[in-house]
Order: sequence, then C-alpha cells, then structure tokens
Amino acid sequence: MLKDFEKTKPEDKSVLNAEIKELSSTLMGMQEQLREKKLPILVLIEGWAAAGKGSLIKELISELDPRFYHVESPAVIPESEARYPFLYPFATAIPENGTLAFFDSGWMESLVRKLMHRDITEKEYKRRIRQVNEFERQLRDGGYLVLKLFLHIDKDEQEERLGSLLAQPETQWRVTEEDILQHREYKHFRDAYESFMDKTNDIIPWHVLDASRRKTTVRDALRLLVIQTQTALASGRYIGSPFEETFPLVKMPKLADVDLSPTISDDDYKKELKRLQERLSELHNIIYLNKIPVVICYEGWDAAGKGGNIRRVAYPLDPRGFDVKPIASPEPHELNRQYLWRFWTRLPRSGHICIFDRTWYGRVMVERLEGFCTEKDWKRAYNEINEFERDLTEWGAVVIKFWIHIDQDTQLARFTDRQNTPEKQWKITEEDWRNREKWPQYEMAVNEMIEKTSTEYAPWYIIESNDKKYARIRTLKIIVKALEKAIDRHLEQVLG
Amino acid sequence: MLKDFEKTKPEDKSVLNAEIKELSSTLMGMQEQLREKKLPILVLIEGWAAAGKGSLIKELISELDPRFYHVESPAVIPESEARYPFLYPFATAIPENGTLAFFDSGWMESLVRKLMHRDITEKEYKRRIRQVNEFERQLRDGGYLVLKLFLHIDKDEQEERLGSLLAQPETQWRVTEEDILQHREYKHFRDAYESFMDKTNDIIPWHVLDASRRKTTVRDALRLLVIQTQTALASGRYIGSPFEETFPLVKMPKLADVDLSPTISDDDYKKELKRLQERLSELHNIIYLNKIPVVICYEGWDAAGKGGNIRRVAYPLDPRGFDVKPIASPEPHELNRQYLWRFWTRLPRSGHICIFDRTWYGRVMVERLEGFCTEKDWKRAYNEINEFERDLTEWGAVVIKFWIHIDQDTQLARFTDRQNTPEKQWKITEEDWRNREKWPQYEMAVNEMIEKTSTEYAPWYIIESNDKKYARIRTLKIIVKALEKAIDRHLEQVLG
Repeated sequence: MLKDFEKTKPEDKSVLNAEIKELSSTLMGMQEQLREKKLPILVLIEGWAAAGKGSLIKELISELDPRFYHVESPAVIPESEARYPFLYPFATAIPENGTLAFFDSGWMESLVRKLMHRDITEKEYKRRIRQVNEFERQLRDGGYLVLKLFLHIDKDEQEERLGSLLAQPETQWRVTEEDILQHREYKHFRDAYESFMDKTNDIIPWHVLDASRRKTTVRDALRLLVIQTQTALASGRYIGSPFEETFPLVKMPKLADVDLSPTISDDDYKKELKRLQERLSELHNIIYLNKIPVVICYEGWDAAGKGGNIRRVAYPLDPRGFDVKPIASPEPHELNRQYLWRFWTRLPRSGHICIFDRTWYGRVMVERLEGFCTEKDWKRAYNEINEFERDLTEWGAVVIKFWIHIDQDTQLARFTDRQNTPEKQWKITEEDWRNREKWPQYEMAVNEMIEKTSTEYAPWYIIESNDKKYARIRTLKIIVKALEKAIDRHLEQVLG
Repeated sequence: MLKDFEKTKPEDKSVLNAEIKELSSTLMGMQEQLREKKLPILVLIEGWAAAGKGSLIKELISELDPRFYHVESPAVIPESEARYPFLYPFATAIPENGTLAFFDSGWMESLVRKLMHRDITEKEYKRRIRQVNEFERQLRDGGYLVLKLFLHIDKDEQEERLGSLLAQPETQWRVTEEDILQHREYKHFRDAYESFMDKTNDIIPWHVLDASRRKTTVRDALRLLVIQTQTALASGRYIGSPFEETFPLVKMPKLADVDLSPTISDDDYKKELKRLQERLSELHNIIYLNKIPVVICYEGWDAAGKGGNIRRVAYPLDPRGFDVKPIASPEPHELNRQYLWRFWTRLPRSGHICIFDRTWYGRVMVERLEGFCTEKDWKRAYNEINEFERDLTEWGAVVIKFWIHIDQDTQLARFTDRQNTPEKQWKITEEDWRNREKWPQYEMAVNEMIEKTSTEYAPWYIIESNDKKYARIRTLKIIVKALEKAIDRHLEQVLG
C-alpha cells in the first residue's frame, strides 16, 4: 500500500475548498440522524509523524457540535509501565451511541512502535494483531462504524516538515525523539506499517490518504466519512452474526448432573478456612509483588450464597490490592456503548485482584432471556467473551469463573427463610420470585453458557453450594491452586 | 492529642472478641437501612506507618456485603507529578449513597508528607488546610457521614513493628523508605500530625485510637462507626444550611440592564476571528508547555448560540490538548453522590483546556427552579461553588465563565426559525418551550447566581449574543486576554 503509493495531483484550490465546505455541511447535517439511529462512529487516524493528524482532526470537527464528538489520544505507554491489557486504552475510549470519536493515533502506532523498540517479541506482536482484528470485529458487530485512515507522506516530505517545525522555537517541542527515530528509520517503519495494514485489512479496510497536500487530505477524509456514514445510516444499525471460532474447551457436566450432596463438618470447615485464608494472604503478597492481575468471576442462582462466599475470599486479602465490583443493571452511559465496555473500564491494574459479583455473562443469561438484546447479539457473545477473556489471560491475568450452584428446593427454603426473617427481608424481592419461575429457561441458558465458554485458559467451576460452607472451602481451594500455578509459571518465565 | 496520649489498658480477650462480634453484626444489620436512607459513609483512616491501618480495614469490612463498601488508597502522588488539584484523588473517590468508603490514608497523610518533604510552602500548606475544611464541610452538608480516625502508636512500638516486618523476607517490601524516614523523624511527624488535627478538628472531629492493642483498636473503631451510623440513620439525611463566607466579588449588572444592541460587520468579524483564533492557537501551545490548566464554562439561554460559540473557540485548539464536556441530566451513579462529584471527575489535566457546555451552575438554576434539590441545598451552593472554583484557581487554573445572553424576542425568533427549518427541528424540544415560559424565574435565578458567584478569581462575563458573531468575537477576546495574563503570571512565578 505504501511502497507503490501514487501521489495525488494538485487540484484547483477553490474547487477543493468548495467541496470541503459542502462535505462539512453534509456531515453537520447528519449529526441529528446519528443520534436518532444511535450510530457510534470511531475514526482511527494513523500515519507518519508530521503527516498532519492533528490538523486533519481539527478540520473534520470544525463544523461539528461539540456534544457529538470526542478526540482521544490514547497515550502511547511504554510497555514496562503498562498496568492494563494492550487494548485497554482503546477499548475504554470508544464513543457512545450517536457520537463520533476521533483517535489521534491508536492501536497501530502503539503496536508498531513497541515492535520497532523490541519492547515485545514477534510472537507477542502476532497475538496482538489477532487481538486487534477481534476488537475491530466486535466493534463492527456491535453496530460501530469504524473508519481507519493512514496519512502518508514520503521521506522527503517528512524531512521538510520536521525541519520546519524544528526551525521555530515555538514548534520545536512538537518534534519528539520518537519522530526523529522514525524519520531516520523511515524504510523500516514503512515496512512495519505496511505489514500491519496487510494483517488488519480484512475486517475493516484501511484507507491510505496522500497527506502531502493538506486540502486534498481533508477532502478525501471527509468524503470517506460522509459516504460511509450515509451508508451506515441508510442500512440501519448493523448487528453482527454469530461467528465460528474454535477455542480450547473443557468438557463440563450439565447442572442437573452435578451432585449437590457434599457437605463439610464445622470442625473441618474452621480448620480449612483458616489454613486456606492464611495461604491466600501469602499468595496475594506474591501476586502483588510480581504484578500478576487476577480476575475472579461470580455468577450463580439467587440465594446460592455468592455474597458470603465472596466475603470469605476477600477477608484475607489486603484491601489495598483488591476490589469487589458489584455489577448491577447498566446505566444509560453504559447501555450506550458496546456491552463489554463497562467491564473493560472496571479491570484491575496488574498486581491487583478484582472480584466481579456478577459479570459480562449477563449477556447470555438475563439479557438473553429478558430480550434486552437480539438473538444474534447473545449468540455472538459466547465467542466474543472467549476472546475478551483470552485478551485478559494473554495480558498475564488469572481468570477464574464460579457458578455458585444450588437446587430449587434449597433456593425455596432460603427464599422462605429470608421472607420470614425481618433482618433478611431486604434480600428478597419480587424479581427474585419472578426469576425463580424461569428456573428451567435459566438452567438451559446456564448450561449453554458453561458449555461454550469454559475454556482451558478461563474455565468455569460449578460450586456445590447447598452447603454454603462446603462451597466456600471449594472456591478458596480453587483460587489458591490457580494462584500457585500462575506464580510458578510467572517465575519460570522471569527466571527462564 | 498525641503527646499526652494515654494508652488503653489491656482487656479481657474473650470479652473483647464478643464485643467485636456483636458490633460487627450490628453493622452488618444496618446495611439495608443505609441503602434505604441513602446514607453515604466515608471512613478516613490515617495514622502512623505500621499502625495497622490495613488490618483494621480488613476487620471493619469482614462482615459487610461487598456491594456496600469500597476501599480506596488515594495514591500519595509526588507533588511534581500531580496533574490535578490537591483534593482530586479524594473528591473523585467519595462513596455513593447507601455505601461505605474506607480511605486507607487520605488528605492528612498526603499533606503532612508533602510538608515534611518541603514539597509545598507553608503558605500553600495553609491554603490546603482551608481546602480540606471546606471539603469536609461540603461532604457533611451534602449528607455524608464522615468518620476520621487516627491510629496512634508510640515510637518504641513503631520500632518493634517495623523491625519485625523487616525481619521477614515476605514482609520486608512493605516497609518503605518513607516509613523509615517517618520513624527516624518520629517527633517531627508527631508534631505535624498533631498540628494538622488541631486545624481540622472543628467541622468533623478526629478520633485518636490507641493502635498498640489490635483488638482494642478494632473494637473502638467499630463502636464509633456503629454509634455514629445509628445516630445518622435516626436523625435522617443531614442537609446543611447556607453559610456565611466572604468572597472577593466583582460588581455585575442585572441581565435587564445589559445592552444587547452591539453588532459586528461581516468584514470585521472575519478579520477579528482569524486574528484571535491564530493568537489562541499560539497561546494554547504555551499553556500546554507550561502545564497551566484552563476551565471555560458556558451557560446561557436556549438558542443563545452556545454551540456555535464553543465551536469557534475550539477550532484553533489542538484537539490533543482540549476537551468539550457536554453536561446533561445526571445519571443514577451521579445523582448518588455529592453534586460536584460529576464535575471533579471531569476536570482537565494540567496543561489542558476543558470547555464545559453547561456546568455545576445547574444547581442554582434548573435544579433550584424544578425542585430537584432543597432550598437549603441551592442556597448553600453559591458559596460551595465559590470554594470549588477557588480550589481550581489555587491549583493554578484559569477559570472563565460565560453567560451567553439574548432577549426574549430573539429567542422566539430563533425558536420559530428552528421549528420551521427541517434540518434544525431536532434542536428544538417541548422542554425548550416550557423553559421559555419560565423566563422571569430563570432571569431572577441567573441574576442571583451572577451576583453571588462572580468572584475576582473566577468572574462571570455576560456575552451579548443577539448578534452571534459579535458574541463569538467577545468570548475569544476574553479568553485570549485571560490566557495572556495567566501566562505572564505563571512565568513571573517561575522566573521570580
């Protein structure tokens, strides 16, 4: 795309200006439709240093109502300081429905730069290319219009521009060491950009723009944006279909086949609880020092004992290094973004433990059964979630998922007890009773969920919780074992 | 408080344990009432290194449902790296209604440490003490229960504890250089803590706890928490009264006395717009390089031309260094916190420009007139807002506030034009017409607002916008002048 790139020809200035004016006003006129149709647009602007990314953005937004757009410069963070997954700065900055986000450099620059600095291995680079493709597909399938532009200038043009920036004291500071390195290594960078675009061109294609004539660049970018927006508005919000992808799955039993009879004696419980909590406390130290992130997910039947279980896990942890994130119904600003956004934004920093009290699996349970999303949406979600969790594990996270399981009789007994005990009444709502009536539908959905998302890297554990104490010991044991394994693996990597 | 501190006497362990158990279960039993009464609780835990802040928090939360609490460790950020106002990490971490937040060190540690390191001057220290008192009052008046604990141990006890942490390889890392410095300078720190507590004891009193006997500390802390919570629940949500405080106010005209006739010719407009935008662009560079934060507030009548005005200001700015924050009705998680929280969380980093399209002044306009808050609330808000803006200017921010002003006839003409122009119809809603009927009430509220909050450090500018072009030139001129002045002052400080 870049090596054989043909420069545009000079065009008549007044014609260009008229075109730009026309296109800008068309774009401005579409803002309200964007809002009505809830179309979110992400414009990714990549390109050479001094190619004019900033000034292009300025032109693109010049006619837009500030309530309709947002400019992001997802910081290029040195790998050593990154405390979040690679995609984190991008996934947390996606636009709301009905608005535009302009990314002034994004995942391409971030990745190519790390590769050129040898901050990441070739293998890691390949993985991240895969993550990028998955991320772009998830956005597209979630109804996002994603427009990817690369602003191209040749080496001579870049030299001239950097030179004139350096010549003036008030613009000097804009040229970074990184820019100079890029210029010196122009050919290497060109190959790297080229290869990146080759590998990420299938789902959402790249548009390389000649950035040597500013007005032409603006016109071309505006034209692309306007045409693609018109098309997207005309065809209605896109909903992606479920897609085939193979994940390494663990074979899991159906809920009905799980033996719920195991119990533990009070004496054993106390002993085990003490031992495991002490061990967990030690492990938390090591996790923290070695910056291993941990994500623990709790799902389960109402009254299964999630809360008490979480408390026993949380107790031995240093409160400075862990967090419980209760997940309730999404708020408007959350509903207005791709459904995983509200989980991306809640991820722990590396070295921290985050316990999710309910999770992204709401998509394939309550949202599926209550019709809060389309069939395509929840069917697609299994693989999207597998991808999301793979992102987490590739970042180095330990991901553990619990289904806290009881049978219907036990639930009824606990509901009744709550109803009859004044201090517990608040724990039981009309909704709980309504959900209970849908037990068979939920059971079917949970079985499907566990079957499709119990990956080797992020397996489900069905926790027998008719005896709550037994359940607590089991989750603690699983967590301790998983952390021990992760620490061993981590130390091996560091040492070996 | 600390020098003459009397140690507690040893108590019977089993009695203590029983008391703790009893208090914990009382606290647990109150969680639902917290939620019902929407009481938010902030427990600030300060104290000596190795005094056991972390383990105290562990005990306090051990019986709580994770959905009801949150542990924060507002990072102790070196002054040189702070890109936000001093109170920012605390003001953004306050709990939601119905929940508890435990701060594992907070504003006391942050300030005392900076003072001891001579990171800040005595004068700056005093200012921040005032900010702390104002912040605590605002929380209290906003219905927050704030409990402030200081965990005290004497020098010998600290030596022993640090020693035993250092003796074990797995706990060694917990002792920081800062802790060792504190121990070496124990007396100086003691004086500094003591003096801090003296100066911040009037609005919300400190409780110094003997931290040398862990169980006693836990019991005492729990008892305080339980008793204060019970009292707060019994007396209903506290609403603070308006308070007297003198701010340096600028005398402002009433809206009715503003001459709305000024206009500008098209030629002058184009010339001036170009000149001012170019100048603003230059200034933005300097602002950015000198890390001066800028907050520009837009309020005004519907159809006064806010949007177009903001666009002309935004156009010359580098999109990487500014942000427009449109302010809509608060979402649930915003309504569930002190009303300024949603603005604290939207502040720009130093060196960035943030344009608020509507602001915190909603409190004394729409919230006042529509009854979304109590009379006490909005009457208190004038001074609270003056304090908030003083925090911003003391941080170094330029704060500029515009009331975009038109008369009723002009509004009617613009409304009618919107109604009759298909592409503009979305801009006009039923609500706009309803608000228009309340023009006299709004005018009264706006006059009062401008009178009471036009401080010398954050003045209001009433912008004559019957001629939108005239208005744009005026705001640009005001911004340019304010930035020039701020840059001069900044360079004087740096050089002098």
